[in-house]
Amino acid sequence: MSFSPLVRELMESLRVLPGVGQKSAQRMALHLLERNRSGGQRLARALEMSLEQVGHCRRCRSLSEDELCPLCLDERRDNSQLCVVQGPQDIFAIEQTGYRGRYFVLRGLLSPLDGLGPEAIGIPQLLERIGNEGYAEVILATNPTVEGEATAHYIAQSLQGGNTLVSRLAHGMPLGGELDSVDGGTLTHALAGRRAMDLS
Amino acid sequence: MSFSPLVRELMESLRVLPGVGQKSAQRMALHLLERNRSGGQRLARALEMSLEQVGHCRRCRSLSEDELCPLCLDERRDNSQLCVVQGPQDIFAIEQTGYRGRYFVLRGLLSPLDGLGPEAIGIPQLLERIGNEGYAEVILATNPTVEGEATAHYIAQSLQGGNTLVSRLAHGMPLGGELDSVDGGTLTHALAGRRAMDLS
Repeated sequence: MSFSPLVRELMESLRVLPGVGQKSAQRMALHLLERNRSGGQRLARALEMSLEQVGHCRRCRSLSEDELCPLCLDERRDNSQLCVVQGPQDIFAIEQTGYRGRYFVLRGLLSPLDGLGPEAIGIPQLLERIGNEGYAEVILATNPTVEGEATAHYIAQSLQGGNTLVSRLAHGMPLGGELDSVDGGTLTHALAGRRAMDLS
Repeated sequence: MSFSPLVRELMESLRVLPGVGQKSAQRMALHLLERNRSGGQRLARALEMSLEQVGHCRRCRSLSEDELCPLCLDERRDNSQLCVVQGPQDIFAIEQTGYRGRYFVLRGLLSPLDGLGPEAIGIPQLLERIGNEGYAEVILATNPTVEGEATAHYIAQSLQGGNTLVSRLAHGMPLGGELDSVDGGTLTHALAGRRAMDLS
């Protein structure tokens, strides 16, 4: 009752955003209405346009309003490497590393219990693209979770016997991490994958 | 470069929301585009409608799309008390306490250095309303900050000599607080305002 119906509806609808609870939604709504109406209008326009126009890139299946996304159109990229990720946000993360090859975005991970088989997440399209475009290396960058590992394993098996090197991101100590706060599984990988120090 | 222009614009414009940085904006945009387009559409509509239609209540100056807000229209409220707050969010907080009188929302607090005098924050309208409607009590519920205290003091002085009781929220220990983590000023107020225990 303390807010009028339209203000309440704005607060309610802000809660569709991940991580926004009742209190934050209230703060956001009042901020937009009291202090930044032009910002709110910009947000409304951006939401409307992107929800209407953004679909998926025909080639890498990342989000894009055009048939091909900027990364797929970029001719300076390395055509010998393909990095397979499970969502558009992971492309952003991998780009930070300096990787300059191509991408393929799965629509989720294999999860038989949820009815997600190879077709549902786009593995046939991935295999077809690899077959057509002949990559020297396919980097499987799904998350190191049970489903991520299973998905990577399935793709690697499907590619067995071809000319493509199939690789997986390394496991080990995170930079700045502390030995006694890293879980045992990670530490086992870090020890097994130890490398001779290069003192040159 | 990792996102297409429309997706980037959505991420940028989500940052108008208070407390939303680059990383959260990215997560929110991808969540809406990948998983909750109908929620995003609801948000776009709510933003558009509220930014277009919500103004200020003619009587209490809180946010409202109608000339009078639901609280001012409610005839069951107590017309003998007026609570003066510095923003619509404070009405929400005071409502939680069970208060059922009337409200008046200041547009900020007195701050001569920022050029905010009595006119800028609506004190003439407040005094006029009190004069016309004859409240038995005016509760000054501005925040206990330097500007909040100065504003309350100014209003109290302006009302001096009338028939209206002017009161201020009590200072003291917050419920569940600990003595050694409460600041000295608050503790001084709590001690000065101590009350005999009622053992009946």
